[in-house]
Formats: sequence, structure tokens, C-alpha cells
Amino acid sequence: MTDQPLSESVLHARFDHLGRGLSDRVLLSPGDDMAMLRLDDSGHLLVAADQVVIGRHVRLDEDPHAIGRKAVLRNLSDVAAMAARPIATIAAATLSPRRSHGWAEQLHAGLHETGLAFDAPLIGGDLATHISEDSADVIAVTILAIPALPANRVISRKGAEAGDLLAVTGRLGGSLDSTGGGRHLDFPPRLEEAIQLAELLGPDLVAMLDVSDGVARDAGRLAAAGGLDARITAATLPCNPGCGWKEAVGDGEDYELLFACRRQPPAMLNGVPVTVIGRFVETANPPGAVKIEVDGIIRSISDLGWEHAGF
Amino acid sequence: MTDQPLSESVLHARFDHLGRGLSDRVLLSPGDDMAMLRLDDSGHLLVAADQVVIGRHVRLDEDPHAIGRKAVLRNLSDVAAMAARPIATIAAATLSPRRSHGWAEQLHAGLHETGLAFDAPLIGGDLATHISEDSADVIAVTILAIPALPANRVISRKGAEAGDLLAVTGRLGGSLDSTGGGRHLDFPPRLEEAIQLAELLGPDLVAMLDVSDGVARDAGRLAAAGGLDARITAATLPCNPGCGWKEAVGDGEDYELLFACRRQPPAMLNGVPVTVIGRFVETANPPGAVKIEVDGIIRSISDLGWEHAGF
Repeated sequence: MTDQPLSESVLHARFDHLGRGLSDRVLLSPGDDMAMLRLDDSGHLLVAADQVVIGRHVRLDEDPHAIGRKAVLRNLSDVAAMAARPIATIAAATLSPRRSHGWAEQLHAGLHETGLAFDAPLIGGDLATHISEDSADVIAVTILAIPALPANRVISRKGAEAGDLLAVTGRLGGSLDSTGGGRHLDFPPRLEEAIQLAELLGPDLVAMLDVSDGVARDAGRLAAAGGLDARITAATLPCNPGCGWKEAVGDGEDYELLFACRRQPPAMLNGVPVTVIGRFVETANPPGAVKIEVDGIIRSISDLGWEHAGF
Repeated sequence: MTDQPLSESVLHARFDHLGRGLSDRVLLSPGDDMAMLRLDDSGHLLVAADQVVIGRHVRLDEDPHAIGRKAVLRNLSDVAAMAARPIATIAAATLSPRRSHGWAEQLHAGLHETGLAFDAPLIGGDLATHISEDSADVIAVTILAIPALPANRVISRKGAEAGDLLAVTGRLGGSLDSTGGGRHLDFPPRLEEAIQLAELLGPDLVAMLDVSDGVARDAGRLAAAGGLDARITAATLPCNPGCGWKEAVGDGEDYELLFACRRQPPAMLNGVPVTVIGRFVETANPPGAVKIEVDGIIRSISDLGWEHAGF
């Protein structure tokens, strides 16, 4: 193959493809928010991993406790996206040798305390150091969860059909404030809201994920999983203060639930607003295209979304 | 606290301590080769994470397929140390932006194929890139396992008593050859041997781990977990060709089983030699000291062992 610069999304797509056709034990394979395993006749287990890379996902000088917290919260948001319940976390950290013991202890406290707060205690892991002081720290967290709904039901990314509504919890845009702080460092994972939503909508909640790369990209993922396109109405977007539609669909790291449903969702869940922002439509092309209607004009926004450009 | 340079072992000990007293669901907490969770009335799950840091655990220019394989094999060795059975792997990789797609695909192939070969398919993970080309790649693998012995029995590090024998599978020393290649990159995890050993010795197999940092350090861990010291007889050490007792106890990355047992183990398991190399003794001091008898002279070797000095 020609060797292009590394693209996370190209490689993810390729690796997800290789993860098809694993054993019967693998009920949901790579490509969803979490993988699911059958452990025996009755037990199901969900697993996901996510990383925080210093300089990429947080500032180089970010508070280590906040880094640890974010590393766990990102994973909890994946659990929420399946309407599942977290049970434990495992962390692997590789630190620059210039970090102090105090720094490492604050990082650990952020991981440990956040896991405990969500009944997902930190039960193990590994700590290593880089050879070079110039290498950036990496914190990889794996989270374990179990189904929270009857009959081991979970909500995967796949299930939308043409005509289904596209809806989102909370508000969108501006997760990263001008100082590099902001909501991306500390947000409430929508665990209870996801379970309530699944209970209220029943089989009419057909697909879900959490917004990490921005609604433009993540709506495209829900659409593509159903062989569809998505159409968003800009005027309906629940924007955070200071944000317009571009920020709402493109900023990313919102960690809200984005879902496909077959009937109107409740307007409010657990005190969090729920908004229908569009719908899924048939496609004649490779699926996953996302368009937005702004003041009567239709624009493509498939190429918007957070590029993980780093700090 | 005073801020000393980062020490993995000091931080591990501190974090393991904080992991005591988690919920009833946590049957084995941080500090063993794997943590163990109770999932429901009958199901038990084991989890561990281990990392390969480029430059630290493998050469900077190592073949990416071999790096992926090693990352999974290290984790499989942890599963063997519990006499458990692997069921799945999850990988999180952060790569330097100078890596090519081809490099990343070879890394993935090493992870994927090694997992499949041991019935522990790669079911998910995450891929990220560093901001800087100078940052070293990190591959963190989490492994899931289930008990392989009746009544959900697993073999933890804790259980040795004074008078118990200290024994090891295979041969020791020289895992890293002069070119940086060698057995540390490709070794057979002792999964079947561990289960056979537990079945043969029954309750007389009392504690076990895998040799990652060298017998000197790892025997100290088994001893400390039992509040004991360990005494090794140099003449009994099963050394690899070209290795003396110092290499056998200090080189590390042998990935053999090191265990405490209450009666003589079989001399051979599944074609792999098993050797008694010492015994556990009472201590009047803080436990975990390891001494070796060489030609009638007793020496302390607690400070030998692999320092993960890097390539």
C-alpha cells in the first residue's frame, strides 16, 4: 500500500474490519463504543479502552488529577453510550522520567477517585516510564461494564433506519475553552440518562453513541452503521452559550449521547434536555454523509469535526 | 513528601495499598499478577494490563509485528501465573506521527494474530498519535481471563509458608541477546504448564507468579507476600547456555513460572523442566529478602534484578 501519514480513522476502520468473524464468544466486535463478550450461558461483559495522551488530549501542563479524572470519564461515557453499567477500571500509564512522585500520585488519585465515584473501582494496571524526558505521557484506561437493561440488552451504533429521528442530550459546542480548560476535562457521563432513555423508549431507541469527535462526525458514524445518511437542522441544535451551529457540530468532546429513535424522545431526562436535531435518510452513495440545513440552504458537514489537533 | 526521581516499584506499592478495601466484587485487588472480580453468583473474571514502551522494553527499531506479539505474550504470561485461561485482549496504542500505516498494520497483526493463537482475540482498543515525532510509542494491552481450575480457584502470589519449596519452570537468564533480540521478544507463555501444575499439586501449590524482573526480585515478591524471606541454592539454578547464577537470577524477562509448593513438584511438565531452586524461611526483619548460597557462601541478592534500563 502507499504509505500516507498516520490516520487514526483509516487505521481504525481497517482494524475493525479484521475484528469481524471472531469466535461466538464475541457478541459485539471492534468498531462499537464497547466490545461485548459472552462469558457463560448468562453472563455478558462489555469492555472498552481509551487513552489520554499528554499534549494531544490535554495540555502539557494540565493538573495531573484532572488528567486522571478525564481518562476515566472518557471511558464512562463509552459505557453510557451502550446503556450499560460500569463495574471496574484498569489503567496503564507511561510517564516521562521528569515527572515527580507527587505528579504520579495526583494522576493516580484522579483515576482512583473517579472510578470509585462511579462504582468502577481501579482494580489494577501498570506503570512504566519513558526512556526520554521528551516523550509525552500516555494514560490508557480500560473499562469493564455489564448490561443494565433486561435480557442483556445494550444499544449499539447499528440500528438506524431511514426516517428515524436523530437526537442528542445536553448542549453542544465549546467544550474546550480558550485557556485549554473547560468541559472536556470534567463532564458528567450520561450513565443514568442512557438507561432511562432505553427504558422509556424501549425498542424505539435503535442506535446510540457518545459525542467525542463532534456531532458532524459522530452522526455520520451512526448513519454509516445503518447504511444511511443523516440530515441535521441547524436551528434545532442545542448550542452552548457563545457557540453557533459550526461549533455545535464540530467542536467535539461534548460527551453527550447522540442517538437514533423511532419516536419522539422525552424533552428532559434526569434534568438534562433532550433535543431532536435531525433524521436519517436513504443514500444512493457510500453511506455516512451528513448534511445540515442552515437558513434554508443545505450544506455538507461530513468533513467538520474535531481532528484531535492537539494543544 | 520529598520528591525523588520516579520509581515504578515505589509507586506500585503505594497504589496497590490504596487498592485495598474496594467493594466485595473485587476478590483480588491490585498487587497480584491479575485482579479478580466476581461478576454474579458464579462468574469470576480476571483482568491485567501490561505495556510495551518503545526504547524501554524493545529497541526503537524493533520489528512492529514482534512488538505486538510481545505485548500480548507478556499479558498471557500473567494469565499463566494465575493458572487461568485467557479469553480476550484489548489494546491501546499511542504511536509517533513518524510511523507509517504499514508499521501500524504490522503492529496490529502482531497483536491480533497472537491473541487469536491463544484463544484471546483482540476485541477492541484505541489508537492515538503523539503530537511530537520524538515521543516514544506505547502499546498497552489489557487481558481478560477466567478461572481454569475447579471452584474458580486461582493461584495468587500470597500463600507461601516457611519450609515451602521455591521452584521454577524452564531455564533462566540471557533472555536479551547481545543484539537486543532474543527470547524476551518471543516466548511460550506457560499457560498449560500452570494448569497442569495446579492439577497435579492440588492444594500443595500455594503461590505463583511469572518471572518478569528476574528470580531475585520475583522470589522476593512471593516471599514478601507470605511475610517470609527466600533462600536460593545457586547450584540448582537451571541456567540457559552461557549464563551463570547471576544472569539466571538477575536478567529478567524469563516469563517462566516461579512458585511456592508444599511438596516436590514433577520434574517435567508438558515437556518443560521443573526445578526446585530453594525454599522459604522465616524472617525477623521486613520480609522479602532473598539470599543465595554460592559454593557454601550466603549472599544477599535482593538488589539484583532487571531495572528496565531500556535499550
